[in-house]
Amino acid sequence: MARLVVIGGDAAGMSAASQVRRMQPEREIIVFERGSHTSYAACGIPFYVAGLVEDVGKLIARTPEQFREKYRIQAMIRHEVLAIFPKEQRILVRDLEKNEERQEPYDELLIATGADPVRTGFDGEESTNVHLVSTLVHARGINQALSDGAIRHVAIVGGGYIGLEMAEAFLLRGLEVTMIHRGPELMATFDPDMGRHVSEALRQGGIDLHLHTALEGFTHENGKVSALLTSQGSIPTDMVILGIGVRPASRLAKEAGLSLGPKDSIRVNELQQTDHAHIWAAGDCAQSFHLVSRRPAYIALGTIANRQGRIAGINLGGGYATFPGVLGTSIAKFMETECARTGLNERELKQLGWQYVEAQISTKTLPRYYPGSTAMQVKVLAEKGSGKLLGVQIVGGPGSAKRIDTAAMALHAGLRLDEFIHADLSYAPPFSGVWDPLVIAARQAMKKV
Amino acid sequence: MARLVVIGGDAAGMSAASQVRRMQPEREIIVFERGSHTSYAACGIPFYVAGLVEDVGKLIARTPEQFREKYRIQAMIRHEVLAIFPKEQRILVRDLEKNEERQEPYDELLIATGADPVRTGFDGEESTNVHLVSTLVHARGINQALSDGAIRHVAIVGGGYIGLEMAEAFLLRGLEVTMIHRGPELMATFDPDMGRHVSEALRQGGIDLHLHTALEGFTHENGKVSALLTSQGSIPTDMVILGIGVRPASRLAKEAGLSLGPKDSIRVNELQQTDHAHIWAAGDCAQSFHLVSRRPAYIALGTIANRQGRIAGINLGGGYATFPGVLGTSIAKFMETECARTGLNERELKQLGWQYVEAQISTKTLPRYYPGSTAMQVKVLAEKGSGKLLGVQIVGGPGSAKRIDTAAMALHAGLRLDEFIHADLSYAPPFSGVWDPLVIAARQAMKKV
Repeated sequence: MARLVVIGGDAAGMSAASQVRRMQPEREIIVFERGSHTSYAACGIPFYVAGLVEDVGKLIARTPEQFREKYRIQAMIRHEVLAIFPKEQRILVRDLEKNEERQEPYDELLIATGADPVRTGFDGEESTNVHLVSTLVHARGINQALSDGAIRHVAIVGGGYIGLEMAEAFLLRGLEVTMIHRGPELMATFDPDMGRHVSEALRQGGIDLHLHTALEGFTHENGKVSALLTSQGSIPTDMVILGIGVRPASRLAKEAGLSLGPKDSIRVNELQQTDHAHIWAAGDCAQSFHLVSRRPAYIALGTIANRQGRIAGINLGGGYATFPGVLGTSIAKFMETECARTGLNERELKQLGWQYVEAQISTKTLPRYYPGSTAMQVKVLAEKGSGKLLGVQIVGGPGSAKRIDTAAMALHAGLRLDEFIHADLSYAPPFSGVWDPLVIAARQAMKKV
Repeated sequence: MARLVVIGGDAAGMSAASQVRRMQPEREIIVFERGSHTSYAACGIPFYVAGLVEDVGKLIARTPEQFREKYRIQAMIRHEVLAIFPKEQRILVRDLEKNEERQEPYDELLIATGADPVRTGFDGEESTNVHLVSTLVHARGINQALSDGAIRHVAIVGGGYIGLEMAEAFLLRGLEVTMIHRGPELMATFDPDMGRHVSEALRQGGIDLHLHTALEGFTHENGKVSALLTSQGSIPTDMVILGIGVRPASRLAKEAGLSLGPKDSIRVNELQQTDHAHIWAAGDCAQSFHLVSRRPAYIALGTIANRQGRIAGINLGGGYATFPGVLGTSIAKFMETECARTGLNERELKQLGWQYVEAQISTKTLPRYYPGSTAMQVKVLAEKGSGKLLGVQIVGGPGSAKRIDTAAMALHAGLRLDEFIHADLSYAPPFSGVWDPLVIAARQAMKKV
C-alpha cells in the first residue's frame, strides 16, 4: 500500500497517523519529528511550571515507542525534514543524532509542522534567561532555572493565553511577576471592553501590569538579560518569558511551491489537501475556514489541530471527510478569573465591514443567594437586521467560561438571537440563575437588531 | 385598559405580570396568591436547609410590597381563588385573613397556579414530622424541626432532584439519611444505566439507599411518624421528607371546563392561550410542547415556568410571542457528583416507538495530568438512520454537568451527530480534555447510526 509520510509528530500529525492506522492496518506510516517527543500537551506547560503537574513526562500522551509498538507507526524523532520535492515525491531528511542527510520517498505526504513562537528579533533574545513556552524542552528549561531559587522576578512579554497562564504559574510559585502588553487591554482576541476585566483580574492578583507597552529591546550582559527595555521605560528582571504569539511553520511548504493563505499558513481545501497532488496539511501550520466570516483564517489551537489531523487521516486512510471550519472558540483562566470567546469580535466585524449590534451585561454566575456566586460579564454580537449570532465573549468567576460552548454550538448551527434565547438550558442554584446569562445578554442585543 | 387578573404569584405569574407592566405602564394588574409570598426560589429550599443560605428571606426575589410599589402590580397574598366563571369573566376569591369571599371581574385571566407535591395518601402523612419541600413554609418547618437537635435520622421518600438535594442538605447538617426509591436506580428521568452512577454516589456519600423499594405506609402515634413501612421492611426514623414528584395544580381550570393535556396539565397553544377566550395559562400548571418528541409534554421546572410566563406576558401586554417548546433539560448535584440530562431517554423513545442508537462513554472531566480531574460518564442517543441527536445524559465530577447546555443547544437547533461532532468547542487543561467528552460520545454513537 502507498507509503504515507508525515512531517511533525504532534497533535495534527499523530492524530492523522493514528486515524490512518485504524482504517488501514497494513499501511506503511512514517513520521519525522524534529524534536525528541511525540504527541505531547504543549497546552499543559504552564501547569507544569506552576507545579500542578509534577512530571513533565505526564504531558506526553504517547511516546515514539508506544506509537511503534501499539500502532506500528514509525515515529522517527530527532529527524528534521529540510526540503520537499513534490515532483519527485521525495523529502530530504536530516538525522539530527547521526548528523546525516538522506532522501525519503512518499506516496502521500502530510505536513503537520505546527507553529513557531514569534521572536522579538532584539539583541539579547538568545540569552539563557529568555524563554519561549512551546515545547517540553522549553518547559524543562524554565523549571530548571526556577529550581535553584535565584529567580525572584519574572517579566512576561505578551498578554494573551500563554501570558495569562504563565502569570498564574509564576504567582503560584511565589515569584514577582511583571507583564507588558502592547494593546489597550489584555487578550487581543477579546474586545477591549471585555479584556479590561481580565486586565483588572491580573492587577488584583498582584501582577505588575503595563498596558500600551511595547518591547523595544533587552539590557543584557554575558548571555543574561537583566532588564526589558520598553516604550514605557526599563523593567529590571531575573527571567523573561516571551508569549507574543505564533506563526505557521510553513517554510518547507513555501519553498516547495505550495500556496499559502492567511498569515502564510498552508492553503488547504475542506479535505485538508494542499494545491499539490499527494500533499496534505493539517494543524497549526495550515489555514482554517472561519464559519462566521466565511473566509479563510489562521487560528493556532490544539483542538483545531487534532480535528484537522483526524480529517486528513480519514481521507488519507481511504475514507472521506471534510473539515467544516472553525469559530475561534478559546478559553483560559487566571486564578479565579475565567475568560472565553467564540465567533468574531468587534475588530474583526469592522474589518469585514459588517453591521452589527452588541450587548454587554454584568451578572452573577449563580443565584445571588447561593454561596460562591461571582461576577460574570457576557458580551453578545449579532448581525444588524437579521439578528444572526456572530460572537460571544465571557469573563467571570469559576464556572462561567465553559458556558461559551453553548454559544459555540449556536454559532455552529447558525442560529439567530430569537432562536438562541428560547433554548431550554439547565438550571439549578448550584449551577446557574434561572435566567441564563447568555440568554439575558442575547435578549438585550435583540432589542437593537 | 382591560383588567388583567393573575392566579398565582410565583415564577410564571409574576414573570407575566412584570412583562405586561413593562409593556403597558397603565394596565390594571391584580395577582391573587394563596400563600404569603410572591416570586420566591423554591429551588433554593434544599440549600437553605443545608445551611448554605442563612435566611429564608433571601430566597424571595420580590415581596408583594415591592411589586406594589415598584411595579404597581396589586399582589394580593393570602387570597385563594376558589372558582373561575369563564362566561361571566369573573372569579371567586377568598380572603384567607378576613375569611371572606368575593367575586372579581377580569378581562384577561392568567392561570399560574403551579404544581402541587404528590401525596402518598397513607395514614399518618399529616404527622408533624412529615415534610414536603415546595414552599417557604415547608422550608421553615423543616429547619425549625432540625433546630432543637432531637432529629438524628431523616428518611427521604423519592430519589429524584428534590431527594438528591435534600440528601445532601441533611448530610451537611450532620444527620443520618435513609432514602427509599421505587425504581431500579435514582433519577427516573435518566436511563438506569446512567442513574446507577448517581445511586453509587449517594451510597459512597454515606446515604443508606434502598432501591426497588416502595412506600407502603407509616408507623405513627400521637401525630408523629416513627417509621416508614416499605416493600422491603420497616425503617425507623425521626423525620420524613416526601419528594415523590409534583402534579399540575389544574383543578380550578378543570372545574371551569378548560381542556387538559398530559398528566392533567392545562392545555395551551404556543401563545400560552387555553381553549377558552381570555384565559391563559403558564408555568407548572400548564403543558409544554416537547421539541424532540414533537408532542405535548408535562415538565415542571422553574426555567420553563419563567419562560412561559414571559411569553404569556408579552401576548397579554399587546405584543406577540410564541413559546417554541422544551427539551426537558435539567441538572442537579449531590456533593461532588453532578448529573444533567436533555432531550429524550430510552424509555421515552421506546414509548414513541422510535428506533435509536446509543453510546455511553466513561472519560474524565479534565486531561488526566491536570489535578482535580474526575470521572465523567456521557450517554448520547440519536435516531437510527438519520443520526439526529435525540438526547444526552451526563453524570460526573465538578464541572461536568453544566456541559449539558451544549447538547441542549444542539437539540434546539435539530443537529445531527455528524454536525454536532464538528462544533468548535473550547479547550484548555483547567476546563476540558482536547477532545470534548460529548463529542467523543457522539462519535461512538455515529458508528451505529
